[in-house]
Amino acid sequence: MAFQGKKLISDPNDVVTEFIEGLVETYPGLQFLDGFPQVKVVLRADVSSATYNKVAVISGGGSGHEPAHAGFVGEGMLTAAICGDVFASPPVDSILAGIRAVTGPMGCLLIVTNYTGDRLNFGLAAEQAKSEGYKVEIVIVGDDCALPPPRGIAGRRGLAGTILVNKRQIAGAAAAAGLSLADVAAEAKRASEMVGTMGVALSVCTLPGQVTSDRLGPGKMELGLGIHGEPGAAVADLQPVDVVVSHVLKQILSTETNYVPITRGNRVVLMINGLGATPVMELMIAAGKAVPNLQLEHGLAVERVYTGSFMTSLDMAGFSISIMKADEVILKHLDATTKAPHWPVGVDGNRPPAKIPVPMPPSHSMKSDESLGRPLQLSQQGHVLEVTIEAAAEAVVNLRDRLNEWDSKVGDGDCGSTMYRGATAILEDKKKYYPLNDAAETVNEIGASIRRVMGGTSGILYHIFCKAAYAKLKASSKSGITSKQWAEALEASIAAVSKYGGATAGYRTMLDALIPAAAVLQERLSAGIDPSTAFILSSEAAIAGAESTKHMQAQAGRSTYISPEILASVPDPGAMAAAAWYRAAALAVKDMYQAS
Amino acid sequence: MAFQGKKLISDPNDVVTEFIEGLVETYPGLQFLDGFPQVKVVLRADVSSATYNKVAVISGGGSGHEPAHAGFVGEGMLTAAICGDVFASPPVDSILAGIRAVTGPMGCLLIVTNYTGDRLNFGLAAEQAKSEGYKVEIVIVGDDCALPPPRGIAGRRGLAGTILVNKRQIAGAAAAAGLSLADVAAEAKRASEMVGTMGVALSVCTLPGQVTSDRLGPGKMELGLGIHGEPGAAVADLQPVDVVVSHVLKQILSTETNYVPITRGNRVVLMINGLGATPVMELMIAAGKAVPNLQLEHGLAVERVYTGSFMTSLDMAGFSISIMKADEVILKHLDATTKAPHWPVGVDGNRPPAKIPVPMPPSHSMKSDESLGRPLQLSQQGHVLEVTIEAAAEAVVNLRDRLNEWDSKVGDGDCGSTMYRGATAILEDKKKYYPLNDAAETVNEIGASIRRVMGGTSGILYHIFCKAAYAKLKASSKSGITSKQWAEALEASIAAVSKYGGATAGYRTMLDALIPAAAVLQERLSAGIDPSTAFILSSEAAIAGAESTKHMQAQAGRSTYISPEILASVPDPGAMAAAAWYRAAALAVKDMYQAS
Repeated sequence: MAFQGKKLISDPNDVVTEFIEGLVETYPGLQFLDGFPQVKVVLRADVSSATYNKVAVISGGGSGHEPAHAGFVGEGMLTAAICGDVFASPPVDSILAGIRAVTGPMGCLLIVTNYTGDRLNFGLAAEQAKSEGYKVEIVIVGDDCALPPPRGIAGRRGLAGTILVNKRQIAGAAAAAGLSLADVAAEAKRASEMVGTMGVALSVCTLPGQVTSDRLGPGKMELGLGIHGEPGAAVADLQPVDVVVSHVLKQILSTETNYVPITRGNRVVLMINGLGATPVMELMIAAGKAVPNLQLEHGLAVERVYTGSFMTSLDMAGFSISIMKADEVILKHLDATTKAPHWPVGVDGNRPPAKIPVPMPPSHSMKSDESLGRPLQLSQQGHVLEVTIEAAAEAVVNLRDRLNEWDSKVGDGDCGSTMYRGATAILEDKKKYYPLNDAAETVNEIGASIRRVMGGTSGILYHIFCKAAYAKLKASSKSGITSKQWAEALEASIAAVSKYGGATAGYRTMLDALIPAAAVLQERLSAGIDPSTAFILSSEAAIAGAESTKHMQAQAGRSTYISPEILASVPDPGAMAAAAWYRAAALAVKDMYQAS
Repeated sequence: MAFQGKKLISDPNDVVTEFIEGLVETYPGLQFLDGFPQVKVVLRADVSSATYNKVAVISGGGSGHEPAHAGFVGEGMLTAAICGDVFASPPVDSILAGIRAVTGPMGCLLIVTNYTGDRLNFGLAAEQAKSEGYKVEIVIVGDDCALPPPRGIAGRRGLAGTILVNKRQIAGAAAAAGLSLADVAAEAKRASEMVGTMGVALSVCTLPGQVTSDRLGPGKMELGLGIHGEPGAAVADLQPVDVVVSHVLKQILSTETNYVPITRGNRVVLMINGLGATPVMELMIAAGKAVPNLQLEHGLAVERVYTGSFMTSLDMAGFSISIMKADEVILKHLDATTKAPHWPVGVDGNRPPAKIPVPMPPSHSMKSDESLGRPLQLSQQGHVLEVTIEAAAEAVVNLRDRLNEWDSKVGDGDCGSTMYRGATAILEDKKKYYPLNDAAETVNEIGASIRRVMGGTSGILYHIFCKAAYAKLKASSKSGITSKQWAEALEASIAAVSKYGGATAGYRTMLDALIPAAAVLQERLSAGIDPSTAFILSSEAAIAGAESTKHMQAQAGRSTYISPEILASVPDPGAMAAAAWYRAAALAVKDMYQAS
């Protein structure tokens, strides 16, 4: 299967220059040479060849590997990056322009990935620069460990390990410290021999403006890929990430090829490099698998882990792993401060325990013994509370099928079942766990019952409802809650549900039953009417409010997608449920006070 | 079309915990609470609730948006991040555990994106924490500008602007400076009202372990997407990136919706946020389009540009743009140092000119007048050089078809044509430009002729060949080059071609003609034989060497893919071409010295 890669980039000829323009807009420490489209050179804004008194370090190559190399320009890393067209080595004149722009009397080191085009173009530029009187050295990095030792000219490809060479190696860090060109070059050469890399791809990349060949079938991956879309060393079935990581590490550290001089007991640094279209989540997962594998399977001490997208292949999905041998000096160079914007931060420093225990709730919030469980003897108010809770819960139980029926027209049809689960849990838990003589704690326990069995938005909203009432009631007297205090608790509950749920009156939610109910309750109590009558009147307002939701447009939940004609035939089931339990509670209270 | 997303991740239930494990392996400044799989909290390793004397700032939400939010934990930004399952709000217990772990007497601020689940779960946790005695405030961020002003409960979605709120807003920066909870919350609230965001998607994301619905056809994009794979506000045909950026900016800054209080003349910061599978190159290109658009179309001063993948949607392709109003105080907070590993570095600082002129070659390498162009009068040696060059070039011209024929069997069939182009350019340029009395400069000009017309590896290798000879000859006397000096120049050329090209004797390249030729030449000259005879003997070695390539395995170029049987029937065309021009030159020299 082949497909035209989906990109917003219209002209593939412009991608590199436009990338550079965006890069310098983002990072004020970077500049570029005014030589587009041929000369595409990014350089430190604070370096000029006329005054620079350190060894300049220059890298570069074909573009399409961003942030490499331009994103690694900055004090402590590269002095300049030479950008070719996508996957094409930069021309000699462009390299020469970069050399001339940043090279002072200390000379410059060119760090080049091992591809024929780069070797030749950078090589010719180096010879030309030498004939102009510059001191120039070249170090070629070939860190690929995927292929068997090459027979001939090609040598091992340069991959993400180059970034480690650039940073660690004196290349970057030590050049900043003022070493001579010969020292810097020797150090970079040594570094390039200590690093090995191998990649895994799940997709090929999309060349700007071209049709992408999907040579990888579904369920397949390529092991040992190159960074230019060239076929990998092997195609294999997709495997879980730990199997893939283990395989790649084995191959990099193979004693057969002996590509990197790393043996059991050594210290190493690890780089997990995304290939362009691999999210941070997946890279971190690979890092989390690689570290214990290196420790346990290979007996290595992993001193630093660099996880991110450093040297990509346009939008290829997959990652590469690089391992570099480390010692105190190398770590010092890797840790040295750099202003290169894409070098990762926060990677060094002491390693505390990775995990710490989940903290316990503070002791002052623990309950006292007396408020735990159902009391042996119920107070008068405890008895009223129990009867009221029973009545309210049973009203919801009885309404299950009608609630489901309404909800099936305007929602997902489970309102009745969800509320039923909460109500039956309350009826069950009440027998054992509710400290009924303590109204505040009882309300809190109702919240706990709901939380245990009711999922979804309604469950958590009722839980918030109870939690807010609990906080309000707890501030009141424990022995007896007045009607006024109950009314205030109701208002606090409504406020919390509105705040976190986002709804208010007229949104076609349970608040359309409760808000009018609370208003009537407050009003009648203030008017001095007897509390149980006020409660009854308030519950009538709840029912009326719930019925009125038929005429409301939905503003929350699935009902927002339902047409107004359908909505007009059905009240909001959440509002009807709230009105039902509230009404039942009011009637129960009334009955008891009339009976007494 | 629907397809099973290609991922190495086997168990979608584990992705978040495995991400966190990899994250803390990478960043030693981060820890997590030991409560997997329910409690998934990342926190600063240097903060403990027992001793923390600042306002803790906590963010979080569903996972799948990495590096948000866990990658922004660190001094100067978040104190803790609460991670839900993929695209699912974290449960209350997990949020509570995070609050308890980092909240000291100064309290904590929860910064929550505006999704119902997050509002409810964080809200309930806040209420619970308050009942445990903690000071807690919540700020809800809804920065989406894609949809018309919402009617109801949902409000505007929280998108990447949240990251700017987290950093700028006192949320992060000022909390570190020791403000009170009320101040920090007020500042974060203000910040959340100053930022607007809108996204563009080219693909939907792959939910771990699920089949991906490709609701976007080819050639389509979604404008105003959400970060959970929900459909965008509109589907449109793919457009060039500058058109898309312009449209998005217009919508964010629309005076009709008036979502952000930004007007002409204001200062702003810009965030270009990748959605997971968008390479840095494309993000930078979008940044490069957005800045001039904001300046020229909207009259805004762009003070900072943050380009990268900050708040992603798994592996969605596309980006979002956020704009936040800025002033001196806000910029100070955004610039404040943070140890959060994924906050971008190198973004602040003075902005020098974006581009500087391409440097000229140093003056000491400019040519003197006398070495420019063909001299009026040829010296004796100048005459010999001209005749030799003619003979060599004509030999290549005459060999064109045979070279192409050989190359069509073992390469891409253009060796003859490529060499022919070089040879005819030499014959042409010689008449006007070659300063033939100056052998060194003439060789350099031959290199320039070749460079002008010969592409590919052979062109650059011959250019390197000439450049190295030039440097060597230039060190010799200008008036007359001895045979010995010519031999040394040949050796320098061979060394350079071998160094940068990577080949040596036996690799089936032009060096298989030139290396034996140079060896014989040196040997015979040392033995005291007359130079023109030595040259003839040397050219016989070149021919023999070129013929012997038939028996060599290819180690370079396309011939490496050709079977040994085919190779055995054909000599390497590059070697044959080199032998031919070398032989012709030797015969010409011999003729002239015999004639004289």
